[in-house]
Amino acid sequence: MGEFELIRRYFAAAACARAGGEMLLGIGDDCALLSLPAAEQLVVSTDTLVAGVHFPEPCDGFLLGQRALAVSVSDLAAMGATPIAFTLALTLPAAEPAWLEAFARGLDVMAAACSIRLAGGDTTRGPLSLTLTVLGRVPAGQALTRAGARPGDLLCVGGTLGEAAGALPLVLGQAQAPETTALELLARYWSPQPQLALGQALRGRASAVLDISDGLLADCGHIAEASGVALLVERDAVPLCAALVEWLGPARALECALAGGDDYRLAFTLPPADLAPLREALWPITVIGRVEAGSGVHVLDACGQRLAVARRGYNHFASD
Amino acid sequence: MGEFELIRRYFAAAACARAGGEMLLGIGDDCALLSLPAAEQLVVSTDTLVAGVHFPEPCDGFLLGQRALAVSVSDLAAMGATPIAFTLALTLPAAEPAWLEAFARGLDVMAAACSIRLAGGDTTRGPLSLTLTVLGRVPAGQALTRAGARPGDLLCVGGTLGEAAGALPLVLGQAQAPETTALELLARYWSPQPQLALGQALRGRASAVLDISDGLLADCGHIAEASGVALLVERDAVPLCAALVEWLGPARALECALAGGDDYRLAFTLPPADLAPLREALWPITVIGRVEAGSGVHVLDACGQRLAVARRGYNHFASD
Repeated sequence: MGEFELIRRYFAAAACARAGGEMLLGIGDDCALLSLPAAEQLVVSTDTLVAGVHFPEPCDGFLLGQRALAVSVSDLAAMGATPIAFTLALTLPAAEPAWLEAFARGLDVMAAACSIRLAGGDTTRGPLSLTLTVLGRVPAGQALTRAGARPGDLLCVGGTLGEAAGALPLVLGQAQAPETTALELLARYWSPQPQLALGQALRGRASAVLDISDGLLADCGHIAEASGVALLVERDAVPLCAALVEWLGPARALECALAGGDDYRLAFTLPPADLAPLREALWPITVIGRVEAGSGVHVLDACGQRLAVARRGYNHFASD
Repeated sequence: MGEFELIRRYFAAAACARAGGEMLLGIGDDCALLSLPAAEQLVVSTDTLVAGVHFPEPCDGFLLGQRALAVSVSDLAAMGATPIAFTLALTLPAAEPAWLEAFARGLDVMAAACSIRLAGGDTTRGPLSLTLTVLGRVPAGQALTRAGARPGDLLCVGGTLGEAAGALPLVLGQAQAPETTALELLARYWSPQPQLALGQALRGRASAVLDISDGLLADCGHIAEASGVALLVERDAVPLCAALVEWLGPARALECALAGGDDYRLAFTLPPADLAPLREALWPITVIGRVEAGSGVHVLDACGQRLAVARRGYNHFASD
């Protein structure tokens, strides 16, 4: 089976080569062709997942397809954007029909859930890895960045943290958990749900937003640095999932939430006055701290005292 | 050195995190933010280069950076587009400062030549490979596709073919050539020049366009298939570079031009009446054949007889 046939056969479901909507031309030409509504701006992000680094090998094709797209679309959520299209660069050691079919199905399920369409890509032979580039749109001037947090703002997250990090030993086959616990945690690792609607609801309200991929403290560090402020995280306010606490105990569950990665929940800052309307609309928001003048990220205990913590997140080229 | 520091340090030259122009926000946030002029459409393309498959390993960082970007931007030329920005996903076995610095310089030289800016990307640890996604813009409705060739159109190319395929044994250290020959051919392999200006000049004139990456005959096959026509290539009209003919002889030089890849010249069809204005503007255009009703790609000898030829191009997953 040739490269072109392979692309056509397995990715037809997620692709759209027909005219119409925002995608005027999809897979099959030198480039895809897209239109952007007037008064909207384009956002773009690229992520690579390497076998043995970002996911175990061998792994289930369906789960990988689902997760790879979710991880990338989460960056669109963090900008308050609406997804448009994505490209997929797939490097494979061999073309295995059953695996590819499952992968394409996983990709398609997540693409449907996120209303995003495959616009094109490349298939090459080599060690298994995937690079996805996602494109989204946002009303002009309303993109949410990391740089606007101001002293007095609240620090919030969009749901419980730590489940994906807790699931990692299960993913790697290095630990076992009761079946219901395992299912809940594995779902959060393999099928994170990009918080697109929350991101869009934060437009015009949040002062800084990102999605948590490297771990809460490391990612809060990015907001603190980009905004030139200090972020204070109240340890006891960090939302933990009951199954994780029951399985690992509160201390290790908290560690997963603070330093683990792969949560793909939004973390954001906003003026206190903007919290009530969001809460009234029943968004899953937990206030976990506040912004102050200064720099860095600081964890506070129940008495408000600053704790000494390592804030290192996952760092692909860290030498220590 | 951390992942974030690595990106910042080596790619600052090609990037632009400042406001202004089409790129409102570059490297450093969840996504880059771009504006698109009114009445323009967006084109996007993704290409992966894997070490040991698409380029030799080890290889010179500067040359690889230059070539990787040129190969991707060539897809924008084939759509008649103007480059806007690109993302780079770089997977490396280790962070080697000297190599990375050279790579970033090569990328920057080609980015300046093509007026394109680095918008973001990802750096991961793993076997060396690169995925670039390029974004460009084209006036609404004027993108050049592969699907419009009609019987009676001329088939043209934008310059000599075969040099990069001829250079491959030199690149791999499997052959030697006189120094001036080697330099000329190696330059065509390592530093192809995307034909952006030619692509833009073809807007409103050419009926089908692509850039030759898999080899002339294989790529003509893509036009034939997309347009539902037959393409006839006159063997003796295919433009060959004198140095290649002198080094390999006319038969092997022609083979490089017909079946070799990596030329990154434009191949296109256009109505005969549209040729003269392009020639008057001194575009480097050679007519190599014509479009007829039918299907497939056919090579004609000096008497106009169809020759039997293998038209297979480079195919990453071909089993034969």
